[in-house]
Amino acid sequence: MEFRPKKRFFTFIKGLQNEICTALEAFEVKSKFIEDYWEREAGGEGWSRVLTGQIFEKAGVNVSEVYGPVPDVLKSTIPESAKDFYATGISLVIHPMNPMIPTTHANFRYFEVTNKNDVIVDQWFGGGADLSPYYLFDEDAEHFHQTLKQACDKHHENFYTEFKPWCDRYFFNSHRNEYRGIGGVFYDHLRPDDKLPGPELEIFQREIASSFIKAYIPIVENRRFLNYSAAEKKWQEIRRGRYVEFNLLHDRGTLFGLKTGGRIESIFMSLPPTVRWEYNHEPEEGTAEANLIQVLTKPKKWA
Amino acid sequence: MEFRPKKRFFTFIKGLQNEICTALEAFEVKSKFIEDYWEREAGGEGWSRVLTGQIFEKAGVNVSEVYGPVPDVLKSTIPESAKDFYATGISLVIHPMNPMIPTTHANFRYFEVTNKNDVIVDQWFGGGADLSPYYLFDEDAEHFHQTLKQACDKHHENFYTEFKPWCDRYFFNSHRNEYRGIGGVFYDHLRPDDKLPGPELEIFQREIASSFIKAYIPIVENRRFLNYSAAEKKWQEIRRGRYVEFNLLHDRGTLFGLKTGGRIESIFMSLPPTVRWEYNHEPEEGTAEANLIQVLTKPKKWA
Repeated sequence: MEFRPKKRFFTFIKGLQNEICTALEAFEVKSKFIEDYWEREAGGEGWSRVLTGQIFEKAGVNVSEVYGPVPDVLKSTIPESAKDFYATGISLVIHPMNPMIPTTHANFRYFEVTNKNDVIVDQWFGGGADLSPYYLFDEDAEHFHQTLKQACDKHHENFYTEFKPWCDRYFFNSHRNEYRGIGGVFYDHLRPDDKLPGPELEIFQREIASSFIKAYIPIVENRRFLNYSAAEKKWQEIRRGRYVEFNLLHDRGTLFGLKTGGRIESIFMSLPPTVRWEYNHEPEEGTAEANLIQVLTKPKKWA
Repeated sequence: MEFRPKKRFFTFIKGLQNEICTALEAFEVKSKFIEDYWEREAGGEGWSRVLTGQIFEKAGVNVSEVYGPVPDVLKSTIPESAKDFYATGISLVIHPMNPMIPTTHANFRYFEVTNKNDVIVDQWFGGGADLSPYYLFDEDAEHFHQTLKQACDKHHENFYTEFKPWCDRYFFNSHRNEYRGIGGVFYDHLRPDDKLPGPELEIFQREIASSFIKAYIPIVENRRFLNYSAAEKKWQEIRRGRYVEFNLLHDRGTLFGLKTGGRIESIFMSLPPTVRWEYNHEPEEGTAEANLIQVLTKPKKWA
């Protein structure tokens, strides 16, 4: 029997979107998520939720379910017999106001292509979650990685070992020879029966997606009352510039979305609210800022 | 006899760099350009000048002269017999503090490739200047275009007619279906004897480059004392986001520089000092902001 998780997984991530938005709103006194519903002309729909708050300067949590004839730009990468595709995923980026709280990004998706008889010819899960601190607290990085590692370890002994360096390789600003953040996990093309049977893979995918809240929310709890100076805010804005550079120069998701005519405002939800580019800015040696740069030049073991 | 303008043109743009920097510094009470000298490992050098001021929040004027064996990324675009290349150019971007003053960009360059006997196998001039207003004053757009048109008209009756739409086509944010600004002129691969003999082409190139000061400085003169609100500054920062999007997603110069291992800080001198991305920001109908967007959806005749 075919493994057909699409409707189940879609229902799961719609629920997860609620859960994540509720967890984030709990920190805000009056700001709420605003939802934009959108439709894709060639098939599908999406729910973009954005919050502009006091703790979260900008947070976007997007769920979409899109389908239809395989777009031309996809054709070279999938089996020739493929006629239609289906993709559903949740994607989020959180830019906190306080530079002591790290920015985070997560994405969990399911993709399948079917032939003219509606038989699946390829299918996979992909996803990941990563952390971009402005001021590095080792215990936050450790907690984030440890939580994701636990979710991985329950399902496959090699998952964390493979997905952690995959994340480092992916979120790399090659033009600056610098990692975007301190990583997390990243994986793609996880096919049924490759490492796990379909149903077990689906359970893993749910578990790692659900673990995001446990990985990130306690960090917000711990850092939100820390004071910060104007100079520290400025440093955050300069580092956010690196985030923009990654997303516009290297991120395959962003570039794929733009090429396939995705909804611009949903794709660019990930871009930080305020950003700064200063010519040749270099932190002084021995400062917390210089320490961050140091850590971002070579991935560390955090769990 | 071969047309060999490289040293003459390099000397000219080094002088022009001084002239432009002096013209800009004249507006500042105490800020001066700071120069960074850099060397290219495979051959060549550059002089990056940056000013952080009260009138000009960030202005960068860069001159470089680079040469050596033809880099791999260039090979497909030039004659097979080419062994060495030489490129020299001036490149500038000016981001004023006051949103009533437009941002401007200009670039004038000479490029040649030689074979193993040091004989030129291809050579050309390229360049352009364009304006990106935040609040549109028709007379500024007209003055800018008129000045460039006059410089063009002196040398060839078709230059402005060709280079104006070329500029519009080039500075286009295709992912938003929106032009970056109100244009100017843009041209590339102007080879000797194509439209003009080499020496006359060189004189044109000097004249259009020199006309930049006459095209832009009077606009700064006229707008610098205009008051502006925090909301108008915010609008400038949102529009600067479009500038970043263009430079990182579409600008061939930027992407070429990154691919060939150019100096990052000199390439990113063009990025605005402070930038903002707001989800789904749309100006209210009938406002000056909405009028700008309107003009940016379809190129206008300004001269």
